Amino acid sequence: MPREPRFDPLFQPLKIGPVTAPNRFYQVPHCTGMGFAMPETLAAMRKVKAEGGWGVVCTEYCSMDPGSDDHPAPYATIWDQGDVRNMAKVASGVHAHGALAGIELWHGGFRSANLLSRVTPLGPISQLTATTPVQSARMDLSDIREYRRAHKAAALRAREAGFDIIYVYAAHTYLLAQFLNRNINQRDDGYGGSLEGRIRLVRELLDETKEAVGDTCAVAIRMEVDDEVTPGSDPRGEKRFLLESIRDVVDLFDLTISDYYQEMGVSRFHRQGSLEAHIAEMKKLVGKPVVSVGRYTSPEAMLNLIKSGITDLVGAARPSIADPFIPNKIRDGRLDDIRECIGCNICYASDGQGVPLRCTQNPSMGEEWRRGWHPEIVPAAPKRERALVVGAGPAGLEAALTLGRQGHEVILAEASRELGGRLLAETKLPGLQEWIRVRDYRAHQLSKLDNVTIYRESRMSAADVLEIGADHVLIATGSHWRKSGSGRHHLAGEPSFADPRTLSPDEIMAGKRPAPGPIVIFDDEEYYMASALAEMLAKEGLQVVYVTGAGIVSAWSVKTAEQSLVQARLIECGVEIIVSHSVEALAPQEAELACVYTGRTRRLPCAGFIPVTSREPDDALWRELSAEPDRFHSLQRVGDCKAPGHIAIAVHDGHRAARELGQPVVVKRDRPLVDAAE
Amino acid sequence: MPREPRFDPLFQPLKIGPVTAPNRFYQVPHCTGMGFAMPETLAAMRKVKAEGGWGVVCTEYCSMDPGSDDHPAPYATIWDQGDVRNMAKVASGVHAHGALAGIELWHGGFRSANLLSRVTPLGPISQLTATTPVQSARMDLSDIREYRRAHKAAALRAREAGFDIIYVYAAHTYLLAQFLNRNINQRDDGYGGSLEGRIRLVRELLDETKEAVGDTCAVAIRMEVDDEVTPGSDPRGEKRFLLESIRDVVDLFDLTISDYYQEMGVSRFHRQGSLEAHIAEMKKLVGKPVVSVGRYTSPEAMLNLIKSGITDLVGAARPSIADPFIPNKIRDGRLDDIRECIGCNICYASDGQGVPLRCTQNPSMGEEWRRGWHPEIVPAAPKRERALVVGAGPAGLEAALTLGRQGHEVILAEASRELGGRLLAETKLPGLQEWIRVRDYRAHQLSKLDNVTIYRESRMSAADVLEIGADHVLIATGSHWRKSGSGRHHLAGEPSFADPRTLSPDEIMAGKRPAPGPIVIFDDEEYYMASALAEMLAKEGLQVVYVTGAGIVSAWSVKTAEQSLVQARLIECGVEIIVSHSVEALAPQEAELACVYTGRTRRLPCAGFIPVTSREPDDALWRELSAEPDRFHSLQRVGDCKAPGHIAIAVHDGHRAARELGQPVVVKRDRPLVDAAE
Repeated sequence: MPREPRFDPLFQPLKIGPVTAPNRFYQVPHCTGMGFAMPETLAAMRKVKAEGGWGVVCTEYCSMDPGSDDHPAPYATIWDQGDVRNMAKVASGVHAHGALAGIELWHGGFRSANLLSRVTPLGPISQLTATTPVQSARMDLSDIREYRRAHKAAALRAREAGFDIIYVYAAHTYLLAQFLNRNINQRDDGYGGSLEGRIRLVRELLDETKEAVGDTCAVAIRMEVDDEVTPGSDPRGEKRFLLESIRDVVDLFDLTISDYYQEMGVSRFHRQGSLEAHIAEMKKLVGKPVVSVGRYTSPEAMLNLIKSGITDLVGAARPSIADPFIPNKIRDGRLDDIRECIGCNICYASDGQGVPLRCTQNPSMGEEWRRGWHPEIVPAAPKRERALVVGAGPAGLEAALTLGRQGHEVILAEASRELGGRLLAETKLPGLQEWIRVRDYRAHQLSKLDNVTIYRESRMSAADVLEIGADHVLIATGSHWRKSGSGRHHLAGEPSFADPRTLSPDEIMAGKRPAPGPIVIFDDEEYYMASALAEMLAKEGLQVVYVTGAGIVSAWSVKTAEQSLVQARLIECGVEIIVSHSVEALAPQEAELACVYTGRTRRLPCAGFIPVTSREPDDALWRELSAEPDRFHSLQRVGDCKAPGHIAIAVHDGHRAARELGQPVVVKRDRPLVDAAE
Repeated sequence: MPREPRFDPLFQPLKIGPVTAPNRFYQVPHCTGMGFAMPETLAAMRKVKAEGGWGVVCTEYCSMDPGSDDHPAPYATIWDQGDVRNMAKVASGVHAHGALAGIELWHGGFRSANLLSRVTPLGPISQLTATTPVQSARMDLSDIREYRRAHKAAALRAREAGFDIIYVYAAHTYLLAQFLNRNINQRDDGYGGSLEGRIRLVRELLDETKEAVGDTCAVAIRMEVDDEVTPGSDPRGEKRFLLESIRDVVDLFDLTISDYYQEMGVSRFHRQGSLEAHIAEMKKLVGKPVVSVGRYTSPEAMLNLIKSGITDLVGAARPSIADPFIPNKIRDGRLDDIRECIGCNICYASDGQGVPLRCTQNPSMGEEWRRGWHPEIVPAAPKRERALVVGAGPAGLEAALTLGRQGHEVILAEASRELGGRLLAETKLPGLQEWIRVRDYRAHQLSKLDNVTIYRESRMSAADVLEIGADHVLIATGSHWRKSGSGRHHLAGEPSFADPRTLSPDEIMAGKRPAPGPIVIFDDEEYYMASALAEMLAKEGLQVVYVTGAGIVSAWSVKTAEQSLVQARLIECGVEIIVSHSVEALAPQEAELACVYTGRTRRLPCAGFIPVTSREPDDALWRELSAEPDRFHSLQRVGDCKAPGHIAIAVHDGHRAARELGQPVVVKRDRPLVDAAE
């Protein structure tokens, strides 16, 4: 159906310098975990964004020359003609769908240690790099000249590769942000000290980029609107001055704030549109197109953004990952088909771990080239068969949906009344409400499919399954938290944990509480569960001690850019935090802790104990059915019932299981091949 | 000159199953930071090992199929015909120098999260992976059958690629070690529980590998000789039983121990040959060739190892990285040319960071293909010129040596009496004595070069430099620790640190001590300096408080596999450890700390304060000379005087500066290229 006319403002073209965006949907530069090492994977993913209707699709941070590399983090490069060739594939894929391609030229300054190129890192000062006890060299005037020359050369290569928008990247603590920062840049050579001195290099780069490519390409700047020394405002007016000093030469302002943990905020701590107040104020001064982000998934919020003039373009990274087709769905009046980002930052964690993006909501993310998966199109099955999916958690819902889209006759059987599985309990934990979108999207999509029948309150026995006589059976019965303590620390579990004081996370989420007194939580998993339980119980007024073998709370959450927020939250809630210790055993009225370095033990009062260690697959049904393999064309366990993990894994596994049902599987690889051996 | 006859035992060929090693020098499988993503880099590096005389050169851990990947850690793969092609280049390069090529087939079990392939990880049980809050699936009998089939297929591909020795890898906590471990493997299906059950899979793999490739390839096993549940001994005799159960089918035993922090021990905590007692005992039972490691750099120790029958082959990883030519140097009677590993584990840290190996002693490591550097051969300069190197620390020594080898006329001027620069003070810190080898190797090599003149006690002014009138001037004057506190936390430093209680690490190493009372050390750098100072001062009986913004002591030392040893050491020395805090300011008699998460402050008594934050380049001479660029063909700052870092960086930079002097620089890239854009 056609779009509602009220959304027209989102579909007005916008002139950006010498180029024109076809609409207001702008995929800002975002990391991919792919970078130069996986050029096919990268190009295919960006192309799908354009196909889905994003009017501008940008690269991730793209190193301008070997003088700045961010290895081992994945990043794009535009160092040489090989890169021109690889990046041209990104640009041409984007152009194929009528979108503009943007490229974010990047130099990390003293953030990047140049571990790959081994070229000495440069910065406005000699300072420690972010990942390694290695400092930058302080740039002298000849280094600055050389940097300007190299930036211009990179801009020319970017144009050669076909890009339409070229960024001067002056945010996120990288080189230009270091030059701007008055705490850092006290240079006395005309490039620092005074405000005029600190902004000089940015202005020079903008001028030189404009001169080099400005006749055919738009010149964009990504910058922060607040004062990075006193985040949240611009009390000295420095950013206002910067903005006014450069607006004549800039074609597009990509505006953000200096608090990366808000910009990149997880839904646990930050909601949609949290940057608006900051951006709106600066927008008034600009007189040039402005884009900004805010994890917008609501068409209403997007419309409001443009209509109220807060920005001219709807910037998005994560929402475009969760649903590359948001623009087309709005265009086509299919608002209820939007697959909303849940703000879990598993995408960011993927990049942070150095692997291609994955997304809890969009299992095809990162698989566009390798497995040939499309986020919206599932090929019809060659033959309609009968499939039974047992369990309507994330894996089961996704499997049933994907099987249904293939045209199979699908039965989805769920033991409880409500769909959602683990999501039902977990989304009641503090801050995790948005995660229910994983269920909601799938439940709604399933409701549109005539060939899928859902049976609720239908716990299935093996006999029930056999009686249904489906061709394909997918068991997605989930998992439960172990009470034995089995995990990284106690591989075989700890016998003394078999104690009435021990309650599992499942029991706590179901409302059980221990006897009054201190509750000890042992976080051996190091993701969100233990800290979320600690927060919830502390807010109930209970006395909570959080124990972990790591040095920090919820250590893996560093990857999702929420660890610092989590640890601050627990401190604020009055949770006692004990790091670098395990809970070694339970003793009467006490828990025995051991230092993970020395083994030295200490004891704490303990009235309740919650081991957050590992989970046990609920695979009894699958095991029973496995004894009768000849009764089905295929029998699979999927999701947590096979291998407990975070939700993105369950969704991906459910999708994969359905896609590959009886299909030959070809997975391509993005890697170099040597010339034939000598 | 020819070798001393007493070293003959090191040069006896050894039959290993169907193949014969030409000598007793065996490069065991070791990580490279290159893996499948950098096949040219990898092949060139392994080839140089064979060229240097290693009779056997093995791959790193090599994933057998997409069912186990260790991304983002770099690892080799033998998944498909593309890998056969890439790995054939490794094997053929090794063969070109008469050595045997070994390959270590790897499956990580529940250690690896398969973040690249996204195939569900498998293990004997469902347990958390090492890097991600994701569990393996428990293998059922069909999974075990499939794993055996895949292992055999991988062995066949390995043979096709030309490998001579095929490993069954049953150590280092990976899949087979998990099956062997009685704490982990309580399976009741014939593959676990009893000792016989737990070793069954290893035996089956050995048999099947032998059957598949054993007519032309040797079958090796890598296993631990001690009990992984009670490290350090084999009290239940399980490993003895395993060994006796498989020795008929194994051609080579690659033996190690379960304490990886000892096997991979840094010289700060472990010396050469620390595994000998463990290995010797098991060797008696075997009756087949045995190899083991011990960071052997001494030809005498190697000889003793073979003559006394502790092992049959001298296994090495790190020593072969620091000097790929050890075997040839012994063969040629050039013992004093051996470049000894210092046991700093920067190699391991490189791999751990996901970048190609680097080595403090061997700057050519990882640059064999990319920059065309050879560890022993420096091309003669096209024209003999006069070069002046100022400063005889790591960078200056390496630069002078490399310039000398190129045939230039070199002057090396050092301000102090002794050569070594920062090494002189740092190698007096607890445990770091072996690091002086960086100086000793270079000083000795320089002493052999007639065209290098060393001036000691010769502090150079700009006028002195100009008077010498060299064509090329390299300033390697080092750096000193900042007392301002400038570093990651206080970018601009902290004014209150300008206090008589503040002493720099340099002052402490020079023997200065604060007034009696508690000494606060603030570790903002997170490598060895702060913890080494803390250990030294505590051992002097002083009261030490170690403060860091990280959650653990010496956080970066995780990369060098020494962090756990360091933190245990500080605890044992009675150092008070305060994590997740910065030293925010000095107040009278006190230091003010702030929680890095909440900003909450607390105060500690403080009689002395040592900020270990960042360093200031000592570049005054370079800056002065830079004003007269026309007086030289080239003027460079190198090493810490340009960009303070760890020693490997200084050595590499000195080498690079000398190599590239007036030469065009071509750096190749190992990366994929897409087909031309559509």
